[in-house]
Amino acid sequence: MPTPLIVRKRAEMRNLILTNRASGKRIGFVPTMGSLHQGHTSLVEHATAECDDVITSIFVNPSQFGPDEDYKEYPRDLHADVHLLAQHGVRWVFAPDVQEMFPPGDSTRVEVSGPAKPYEGTLRPGHFSGVATVVLRLLQSAPAHKIYFGAKDWQQILVVRQMVRDLGVDVEVVTCPTVRDKDGLAMSSRNTYLSETDREQALTIYSSLQQAKKHWCNGIAINKIEKDLKTMLSAKKIQIEYADIVDAESLQKIPESNPSTPAIILIACRVGSTRLIDNLLLPSQTLSSC
Amino acid sequence: MPTPLIVRKRAEMRNLILTNRASGKRIGFVPTMGSLHQGHTSLVEHATAECDDVITSIFVNPSQFGPDEDYKEYPRDLHADVHLLAQHGVRWVFAPDVQEMFPPGDSTRVEVSGPAKPYEGTLRPGHFSGVATVVLRLLQSAPAHKIYFGAKDWQQILVVRQMVRDLGVDVEVVTCPTVRDKDGLAMSSRNTYLSETDREQALTIYSSLQQAKKHWCNGIAINKIEKDLKTMLSAKKIQIEYADIVDAESLQKIPESNPSTPAIILIACRVGSTRLIDNLLLPSQTLSSC
Repeated sequence: MPTPLIVRKRAEMRNLILTNRASGKRIGFVPTMGSLHQGHTSLVEHATAECDDVITSIFVNPSQFGPDEDYKEYPRDLHADVHLLAQHGVRWVFAPDVQEMFPPGDSTRVEVSGPAKPYEGTLRPGHFSGVATVVLRLLQSAPAHKIYFGAKDWQQILVVRQMVRDLGVDVEVVTCPTVRDKDGLAMSSRNTYLSETDREQALTIYSSLQQAKKHWCNGIAINKIEKDLKTMLSAKKIQIEYADIVDAESLQKIPESNPSTPAIILIACRVGSTRLIDNLLLPSQTLSSC
Repeated sequence: MPTPLIVRKRAEMRNLILTNRASGKRIGFVPTMGSLHQGHTSLVEHATAECDDVITSIFVNPSQFGPDEDYKEYPRDLHADVHLLAQHGVRWVFAPDVQEMFPPGDSTRVEVSGPAKPYEGTLRPGHFSGVATVVLRLLQSAPAHKIYFGAKDWQQILVVRQMVRDLGVDVEVVTCPTVRDKDGLAMSSRNTYLSETDREQALTIYSSLQQAKKHWCNGIAINKIEKDLKTMLSAKKIQIEYADIVDAESLQKIPESNPSTPAIILIACRVGSTRLIDNLLLPSQTLSSC
């Protein structure tokens, strides 16, 4: 397949998208921070299946990293990323530099409350403001019909959906399933930080999610499931930041009296010095598939 | 001229604009809070001269009023407004209700620092966040080529320009001159609040601006000009909130050593119980027109 066109400037990117929209093309957008893996290429495949042309952005967004986080260390390899995207039929790669997205004197932020408040919002202050701010900017530069996100960053999707709905941004937010390695570990660019021992320990995240789902379907009380989940993670020396079963839309605790609410298990933890998140949507307990 | 089409829903408005853009039309957008006067119709005339079709929004934006401000009392008369706009060739009037622009559960705000910090930003906390939030939403619903603002709300224009630049919104922000009554009073929907005595006093705002400009061109020191300006306003029992000469872009104080910086006189004051703002751009002191 042809190599994607690499675009560096916002105005050029917008003109390309608008021109193609005007000729009737449906555009799909996969925003990334690069360091691409099968999770990202799965998003591209969904976009390719549903749209005429796909744009992928590669931009390590400084505004979503906290001061003590890994912005500088975050893995970057544009050449390898573009090579991978070429194999998946991406037409444009939008790879602006920081000055292009956050020009000198920049002073505008998008603030979302609601779904941005708990969990990552509390543990990573400013993170979702950084995410919402950059996604809105990317969508102004690449006004696509659909934008694709992976379910691993569940709370991020809720925040983006809230922003898009509130501001009336003309784009459909599409959620794609989490892609896992054969051993069950959710794909993440940060998995490259894991030592062999770390990785062995990290597998417990998925097995604990699976066990919790089984207990959920067996009607075990939520408090008990959460307790067992935490015990299982701690037994492998995993430091838990949160491991909760919550309403999948509001992220609020689910009353025991109403177990049919769409629910999700959310986990954030540290394995060695690497912070990982994962989650699993829980089927309705009334379904035979549960 | 034909009556404008009144549009109530964001999606419908967007589709109309996008359809007309796709057929090559240049669209001009005049956002208003209704209660239209010649200041607004002047904006419409600028838009009509530069664009193929003009959309005017009429939306009294709750998010830009403080808790003690005049949101409830703000004058509203959609019928009269539409009649006036029809006479000026406006094609669409976007008049959404509050629930349409701020749906239940709404939790997204745009925050601009920089030019939004001083003056109105300090005196009306949250005001410019409300302005930026609604202008961005309006532009998502009415993605016009150009958006028109009156110079009377000078700081508002700086805030909107900053937001548009930072977020990369695809619109040109056009500033149109302040329109004044024959007696010099800047047009404002809030002028209807003025009693006859108030109005008489309010005329001093413009005459004090004119005097200050004369002094500026005569090379009188900025401190002295500001002092005289305040004396002149106070003599008419006008309560001054600010009356300063500042850099017209940064809104910072101008060093006496560099009097050629583009400068503006900004005034906010209360006449009776009515809050009024006005301003005057100062010509370069090196120009013969000064």
